[in-house]
Amino acid sequence: MLSTGEEVLHGDITDTNAAWLSRRCFEEGFALNRRVTTGDALDDIAIELVRCSQVSDVVIVNGGLGPTTDDLTTEAMAMAMDVDVELNSYWLTALKERFEKNGRTMPKSNIKQAMLPEGAELIDNPVGSACGFSAELNGCLMFFTPGVPSEFKQMFEDEILPRLQARYPNTAKREIQRLYSFGVGESTLNDRFEAIDLPEGFELGYRSALPFIEVKVFSPRQHSEISLITEAIKHAIGDNLVGDGKSLLETMGDLLRESSLRLAVAEKFTGGYLTNWLNENADTQNALTQGWVLSESSLVTENDYNPLAAVLAMATAARENAGVEIGLASGNVEAGRVALGLSTAMGDWGIIVKTGRKLTNEDYRCYASTMMLDMLRRYLTGKEMFPEISALATLESLHIPVEIEQ
Amino acid sequence: MLSTGEEVLHGDITDTNAAWLSRRCFEEGFALNRRVTTGDALDDIAIELVRCSQVSDVVIVNGGLGPTTDDLTTEAMAMAMDVDVELNSYWLTALKERFEKNGRTMPKSNIKQAMLPEGAELIDNPVGSACGFSAELNGCLMFFTPGVPSEFKQMFEDEILPRLQARYPNTAKREIQRLYSFGVGESTLNDRFEAIDLPEGFELGYRSALPFIEVKVFSPRQHSEISLITEAIKHAIGDNLVGDGKSLLETMGDLLRESSLRLAVAEKFTGGYLTNWLNENADTQNALTQGWVLSESSLVTENDYNPLAAVLAMATAARENAGVEIGLASGNVEAGRVALGLSTAMGDWGIIVKTGRKLTNEDYRCYASTMMLDMLRRYLTGKEMFPEISALATLESLHIPVEIEQ
Repeated sequence: MLSTGEEVLHGDITDTNAAWLSRRCFEEGFALNRRVTTGDALDDIAIELVRCSQVSDVVIVNGGLGPTTDDLTTEAMAMAMDVDVELNSYWLTALKERFEKNGRTMPKSNIKQAMLPEGAELIDNPVGSACGFSAELNGCLMFFTPGVPSEFKQMFEDEILPRLQARYPNTAKREIQRLYSFGVGESTLNDRFEAIDLPEGFELGYRSALPFIEVKVFSPRQHSEISLITEAIKHAIGDNLVGDGKSLLETMGDLLRESSLRLAVAEKFTGGYLTNWLNENADTQNALTQGWVLSESSLVTENDYNPLAAVLAMATAARENAGVEIGLASGNVEAGRVALGLSTAMGDWGIIVKTGRKLTNEDYRCYASTMMLDMLRRYLTGKEMFPEISALATLESLHIPVEIEQ
Repeated sequence: MLSTGEEVLHGDITDTNAAWLSRRCFEEGFALNRRVTTGDALDDIAIELVRCSQVSDVVIVNGGLGPTTDDLTTEAMAMAMDVDVELNSYWLTALKERFEKNGRTMPKSNIKQAMLPEGAELIDNPVGSACGFSAELNGCLMFFTPGVPSEFKQMFEDEILPRLQARYPNTAKREIQRLYSFGVGESTLNDRFEAIDLPEGFELGYRSALPFIEVKVFSPRQHSEISLITEAIKHAIGDNLVGDGKSLLETMGDLLRESSLRLAVAEKFTGGYLTNWLNENADTQNALTQGWVLSESSLVTENDYNPLAAVLAMATAARENAGVEIGLASGNVEAGRVALGLSTAMGDWGIIVKTGRKLTNEDYRCYASTMMLDMLRRYLTGKEMFPEISALATLESLHIPVEIEQ
């Protein structure tokens, strides 16, 4: 891959296209072996195009196809190929029609976007004004793509990937199953998977997306043993599995929708993190009836201060005041200790945890919020309620079963 | 810069070191002109080192200095230089002492981290087990640094940057003033700055960090006109200036601390975004007494539903129920319209806005939360309360002055 642009080279924006393309190519069996970033200067781009063409079979070039004077990738490729640029009348017409459709006249500067190096093949861009193109240089197939992430991604998926697959039909195509775990480290997971005999062409990958670890099961496409192996991996992850092909938040959204349970949340330590997070997903948002953030816990008297009893009182008060089925609460204790509580019609569960790692305050709020959601997940799916959680040591836990009135 | 590592190359982690180094180098007057990313394979790294050495004066290499078998950067450099690796006894002793200090014996695998290419100069790493080193190849000065971001950053600041400055004393050293704006686009800012005559060596840069634009004023170090020019730029940004060397959140923290005002927040549309955000800063966290997130606004009757009156009722109820000086509220209206309210002892202000851009729901919650904080900033600093805001069209606004009882 060759990324162009001063903003990327000088760190004003992070090159998210690069990370995305790298991941997608790897998933599809076309792992990148080299990535280069250069600025906007015509000569620099042209030289880099030549260098890349000399050492790779395929290069995907990103950026520099816009209408402004500092968009020079097309001209650089013409220079590298030692050809002129020529007007592509098909794209010029397409561009003009798009502007007219919106009641505007095409500005002259956009004509530049219909100029391609002689001999290049146009690649359609249904969502933007910059068409892509492909051309060969020194026997290397080069694809040119726009920098706008949505346009870039669509062009890769719809146009470039099919061409790569047609050109390299024997490249192992792979499927990926994604499993998300919480509360267990990568090395522990690795040990748990050791007994699983992977068939040829299967491979495991890990991606740490704190506080979760994404386990990726790579396999040949439509292999007969995919579901067998995936089930074995899921079994090994055990009750640390928080999402099968989806995140914990999505899992919770599905669980809450299916069970028609409603939530209220009282946050002291987590300060709105959980409430805000729940609002990122339509299903969890619908279930969330009320969220409170309290700078001081006004729900308990400080006289007989017992942190576990206090956080359970908060969770219960949240549940009862909002008139819903589930209450979740986080309370401060002291010196890195956090109390978390779950209140339900079937009983209450409370826990005091302490982090074993150097977490920033922000990361700790994330961990504690995840832990609360995970308590609810365990409750809703009938799992062990007080598991060991990596990065968080449990100092105390309390279960108050519901009192059945006679 | 040369970044090494399969995780970076295949997109499993984002190369934050690259963006950071690019920005720091640019700020110090040593702008990068090329960045390459390669995997973990010995040959690939060695070839890339040679290529980089042929086209650059200085290369900073990052990653691959760890104790494990896939950390091969040192060996690759020795291969590129056609020399052997040799034990650096100073670093071996330093490593052993560190392990002993923690009551541990140094594992054998760490000996590898004391091996450097013959002729290389050791670079100290006070915070990690991987020392850095520098060596010349084809007349190019190459620095080798560990991948751990905190170690990498400290090594650059303390060791590499001083060496670069000593080697290139005539490189223009620059200072940067950072100004943050909200509610105004880059092209509008650019127009406003046109009348300002920048002295030689001054330059303006923009970094879009939505919903803010960071304006960077680059200047020669200790130039006599820095404050004059910076003041002129601040004047041109006008009341869109939300932070002088600090973010809006930090600005609000300072304003709230100085004024000893306390906040309560009632969020319907923004769903906890503002409350969670306020909790990221110690000063704003201290000022925040209570935050509510309501799935339905139980504070107003739906009979006489007037969105502006409703959001002001929410803000007022939040303020009065929590017994504090400031109430902020967000309410849904319909179809992309959001009502925002500020309630104070000096009167209430409400506004209905609509986005002109295609914002994701998450981004819209961010914009609306920023708008609420910006209303409070304008109130506390005596600015115009209903400004034009780019990306948000104001549909309606309402000011209810405090009723003075006779």
